[in-house]
Amino acid sequence: MKELDFINIIKEQIGTEFIGDDCAYLKDLGIVITQDSLVEDIHFKKEWYTPYELGYKSVAVNISDVIASGAEPKYITVALSLPNDINNYFIKDFYIGAKDALYGAQIVGGDITGSSDKIFISIAAIGTDKGRKISSRASAKSGYSIIVNKNSVNDFGKSSLGLDQLLRGIKKSDVIEIHKKPILDYDFAKMIASKIESEYAMMDTSDGLADALFKIAESSQVSIVIDDINGCFGAEDYKIVAAVPKEFLKSLSNYYVLGEVVEKNDFIIKIGEKEFRSYKDLNLYDHFGGKYER
Amino acid sequence: MKELDFINIIKEQIGTEFIGDDCAYLKDLGIVITQDSLVEDIHFKKEWYTPYELGYKSVAVNISDVIASGAEPKYITVALSLPNDINNYFIKDFYIGAKDALYGAQIVGGDITGSSDKIFISIAAIGTDKGRKISSRASAKSGYSIIVNKNSVNDFGKSSLGLDQLLRGIKKSDVIEIHKKPILDYDFAKMIASKIESEYAMMDTSDGLADALFKIAESSQVSIVIDDINGCFGAEDYKIVAAVPKEFLKSLSNYYVLGEVVEKNDFIIKIGEKEFRSYKDLNLYDHFGGKYER
Repeated sequence: MKELDFINIIKEQIGTEFIGDDCAYLKDLGIVITQDSLVEDIHFKKEWYTPYELGYKSVAVNISDVIASGAEPKYITVALSLPNDINNYFIKDFYIGAKDALYGAQIVGGDITGSSDKIFISIAAIGTDKGRKISSRASAKSGYSIIVNKNSVNDFGKSSLGLDQLLRGIKKSDVIEIHKKPILDYDFAKMIASKIESEYAMMDTSDGLADALFKIAESSQVSIVIDDINGCFGAEDYKIVAAVPKEFLKSLSNYYVLGEVVEKNDFIIKIGEKEFRSYKDLNLYDHFGGKYER
Repeated sequence: MKELDFINIIKEQIGTEFIGDDCAYLKDLGIVITQDSLVEDIHFKKEWYTPYELGYKSVAVNISDVIASGAEPKYITVALSLPNDINNYFIKDFYIGAKDALYGAQIVGGDITGSSDKIFISIAAIGTDKGRKISSRASAKSGYSIIVNKNSVNDFGKSSLGLDQLLRGIKKSDVIEIHKKPILDYDFAKMIASKIESEYAMMDTSDGLADALFKIAESSQVSIVIDDINGCFGAEDYKIVAAVPKEFLKSLSNYYVLGEVVEKNDFIIKIGEKEFRSYKDLNLYDHFGGKYER
């Protein structure tokens, strides 16, 4: 897998201190930072999205990383590279969509340039650690509970179904709406990050629930066992999953316990009766498989 | 000019509090942030650059904005969207180049994705205001001196000449080297920002010296008069120009006085005997005109 090769080369070049979580935690500045791009014909087809939806989604996927880190979203910068046929309406509608996905953050700058034929969007987002405990995917410990937002538990996999429908030429449906306009677990992540005192792991399920748990288990050198719920393998959910101490649950509300962290086992994650022992294992089992780019 | 239309629409949507300078100054966090993209066939031709040079330049142009704000460069994130034919060597060499342009900053993350055919690079850079006074292009005042680095005064316009040669098919020369590998006025900007107490204006000359002075004069509601030196109109110099109180000069070394800020006049800037009254005026006079994209 080329992307993994590339990431390993980058790690060799710049070290691993900040590489691992979706956000880099810059403790001296009290902030986290993340940057994610959306590229036409790689992450989206232009005909699928209104400019509003594109603005919304580009910002939401970055804000999602910030809230999953436990930080409070504060500022974003937006870089757009746009082909010649883009008009004023596109820019206005894109920014109206972008503003609707800010979850309290503010757009403070960026860049606008030409592009020979495709739309490129790259967004950097900053959050603060003020009053928050920042998560790390390496901080899950044996005995911790795996939790998700009770209101989101039936939503896993829906975004992926929506993408599947788009790829099959369907234009409008509830799951397509979910795919194009992800609603983040902002309150849920905030409740955890502002109440917890222990080290904990939290991620968004941007590559699917199973994928997030796999990464947490691997980084934390533990194994994870969860119930077999629907939609574990669908990407682009942008929901929150966390591994927190069992005794911390009494400080929380509105959570759903999906499973627990156990000592490192032969498997890395176990979903129902099915064990996953390698990342390859996980991908082979990806029964949606329809993600436009993995 | 389409880009200006777009920027006006963006200003309408997100307000102007942070728009104006190349970096946004986030006072509550004590940082500045900037984000700039380099797009294949818009900002560069692939055959002109080694991966090393591309890594170097993408980082340097962002660090340049940070040092021109007066801040100390601290962290950057790098987002790359790359076509399928990019290999491991490209990534490694790109990052070696990127590291050589950090001026003390650290690469802390980013994103790597596919792209259908063009290379797209977007970098966000953060600097701190610790021990520094942050500049604003709106802070030039009548009576201020316009200064540049004494060592850089003969370099204005060289980058633009280099680009001109590249466009004419020349492969190697001193000015091409300057175009591809800009050397920043790091020490000069740092000296100013760490010693000055008054409000002041400072910019990099990424769109040319005349362009920077025009923007300072316009934002500050003043006019600027400078000597007619060579290279005022060449873009991509990435040198520092500042407007500082005359009495501050005695705290400085290694500066060259190019001219001064005067009360708002009929002209916005005056270079030698030539007056420029509008941005259009400035562009008409652009005798290099060879910039790949303006």
